[in-house]
Amino acid sequence: MNLLPLNGKAAYVESGVWANKAIKEAKLFGTTEVVATSKDKNFSYVPKNYSIPKDASYLHLTSNNTIYGTQIKAYPESPIPVVCDMSSDIFSKPVDVSKFDLIYAGAQKNMGPAGVTLVIVKNDILGKTGRSNPTMFEYQTHIDSDSLYNTPPVFPIYVCMATLEWLQSIGGVAAIEKINNQKAEMLYSEIDSNPMFQGTAAAEDRSFMNACFLLTNPELEDDFNKVLKENGIIGLKGHRSVGGFRASMYNALPLESVKVLTTIMKEFAMQKA
Amino acid sequence: MNLLPLNGKAAYVESGVWANKAIKEAKLFGTTEVVATSKDKNFSYVPKNYSIPKDASYLHLTSNNTIYGTQIKAYPESPIPVVCDMSSDIFSKPVDVSKFDLIYAGAQKNMGPAGVTLVIVKNDILGKTGRSNPTMFEYQTHIDSDSLYNTPPVFPIYVCMATLEWLQSIGGVAAIEKINNQKAEMLYSEIDSNPMFQGTAAAEDRSFMNACFLLTNPELEDDFNKVLKENGIIGLKGHRSVGGFRASMYNALPLESVKVLTTIMKEFAMQKA
Repeated sequence: MNLLPLNGKAAYVESGVWANKAIKEAKLFGTTEVVATSKDKNFSYVPKNYSIPKDASYLHLTSNNTIYGTQIKAYPESPIPVVCDMSSDIFSKPVDVSKFDLIYAGAQKNMGPAGVTLVIVKNDILGKTGRSNPTMFEYQTHIDSDSLYNTPPVFPIYVCMATLEWLQSIGGVAAIEKINNQKAEMLYSEIDSNPMFQGTAAAEDRSFMNACFLLTNPELEDDFNKVLKENGIIGLKGHRSVGGFRASMYNALPLESVKVLTTIMKEFAMQKA
Repeated sequence: MNLLPLNGKAAYVESGVWANKAIKEAKLFGTTEVVATSKDKNFSYVPKNYSIPKDASYLHLTSNNTIYGTQIKAYPESPIPVVCDMSSDIFSKPVDVSKFDLIYAGAQKNMGPAGVTLVIVKNDILGKTGRSNPTMFEYQTHIDSDSLYNTPPVFPIYVCMATLEWLQSIGGVAAIEKINNQKAEMLYSEIDSNPMFQGTAAAEDRSFMNACFLLTNPELEDDFNKVLKENGIIGLKGHRSVGGFRASMYNALPLESVKVLTTIMKEFAMQKA
C-alpha cells in the first residue's frame, strides 16, 4: 500500500502462512512475483539461492515462520529494497537494520502485548506509489507526526518500553541471543538424540523461536499430551497444518522452562522404551 | 471504504474537525456531499433541518464534537442508512442502536484505554461497494471471524469489559445519563449565571461531555489558570481553534469534580468583582 506503485511489481519469498497473507494483500495494489517458495515441502525449509528481479519495487521476506518452525539465518544480498516481516523474532538477536528498507513487526512476541506494531522505514522509499491511501495508512503521516497522528495505544507502548528496558538491563540483543541459542540448542539436541521425537524443519533452517517436532510413533501423542499436562506445560499443540508439537521460546521464556521440557522428553522415552 | 460504492456518493454533516476528517478520507473512495455545515459560526452549533439526498449511500453524522462542545440531541429521520461516529459520547446515555446502520467509536472516552475501536454494523449494508479492500480493513472479515481475525489488543479489550461491568453495576446507561445530566447542568448553570464566564456553543446544542467556555474578560485568563493549577485542576485549556477553556465530563468524572470546578469559578468571580 505504501511501496508498490500503480501497475508496479513486487518480489516475494513464499516461506509460510504469513508470507502468503502478505502476497494476497499486495495483489490488491499491483503485481506480485513469487521468486522462491518452499511450498513443495510444506514450508519445512527456507528458500535460498533465488534470483531477485531488478525491476521489482522491493523484495519481501518473513524472518521467522512460527507455524513451520523455520527462520532465515543469512539474509540475501539484494539489488532492490528489502522489506521484512520480523514479527516473531525481532529483538531475539542482533540484526543489521541498515540492510533493510522497511522492517515491520507486531509487538506480541518479543516486545509487548498485542495492539501495537513497530515499523522501521527508510524515508527515501516512501512517496513513490502514485496512490492516495487513507491518511491513517500512510507511513508518511506517522513520520510527520512523530507517531502521534492518532491517539496511540498507550498501554501496549508502555509495556514495550518496559520490556526493552529489561532487555537493555540484561545486556541487550547480544545477551538475549546467547540465551536464545542455549534454549534452542538444548531443545533441538534433545529432539535429535531422543528416538521418540523428530524435528519437522530442515536442520539448517530451524527456528530459534519455535521448535516443531513430532512423535516418531504418532499413537503415543495422547500419552505425551497427558504427561505435558501433568507437568503444567500448556500450549504445545502444533498448528493443524503441521501437526505434532510446537515449543515457542520467545525472549520471555527462561532456560529453566526448556530444561523442564527436555527432562520430561527424556523421562517419556525411558518409560516407553 | 466499506460502504461507498465505486463512483458512489455519500452525505456528510460537517459539524467539526472529526466530521471534516471523515469527509477527507471518504473523498478517496467516492463523491461526498456536505448536506449541512456549521462552519459559518466556527462549528458552535449542530446543523439541523437539512435535506438528505435519497441517492446517497449513507448519511454520516458525528454525535459529539469534542473541540467545539456541541452534541446532537435529536437524530434526524433519514431515508438512507445512517453512519455515526459516537467516539466521544457512546455509553453516556441510552441510544436506540436500531436506528443506525453503522456506529463506530474509539474506546478512549467512555469505554477503555486507547487501542481498540467498537463497531456496530447491520450486516445488510456491507458487500455493496464493488471494491476489494485489504482483508484487515473489511468489516466482513471481522464479522466472519467473531472479531478474532487478528491477534486482538487484549488489554484494551479487557479494560473495556471491566468498564462496562462497572457501568452495568451502577444501573447502566440510564443511570449514568442522570449523573451526566447533573454534571452538565451544574457546570452550564454556573457558566450562565457567573458574569465572569460565557459559553461558546449554542445553548440547545451544548455537549454534556465537553463544556467550552471563555472568560468575559480575556485578560484574566492567566489569573484563572493560576487558580485552576493551585486547586489541582489540569487539562482545561481549550483547543487552539476555540480558545478559552474546555471541561470534559466523561463517564469516569464524578459529580464531585464538577462541584470543585464550579466552586472555584464562584470564588474567582467574588475575588475579581
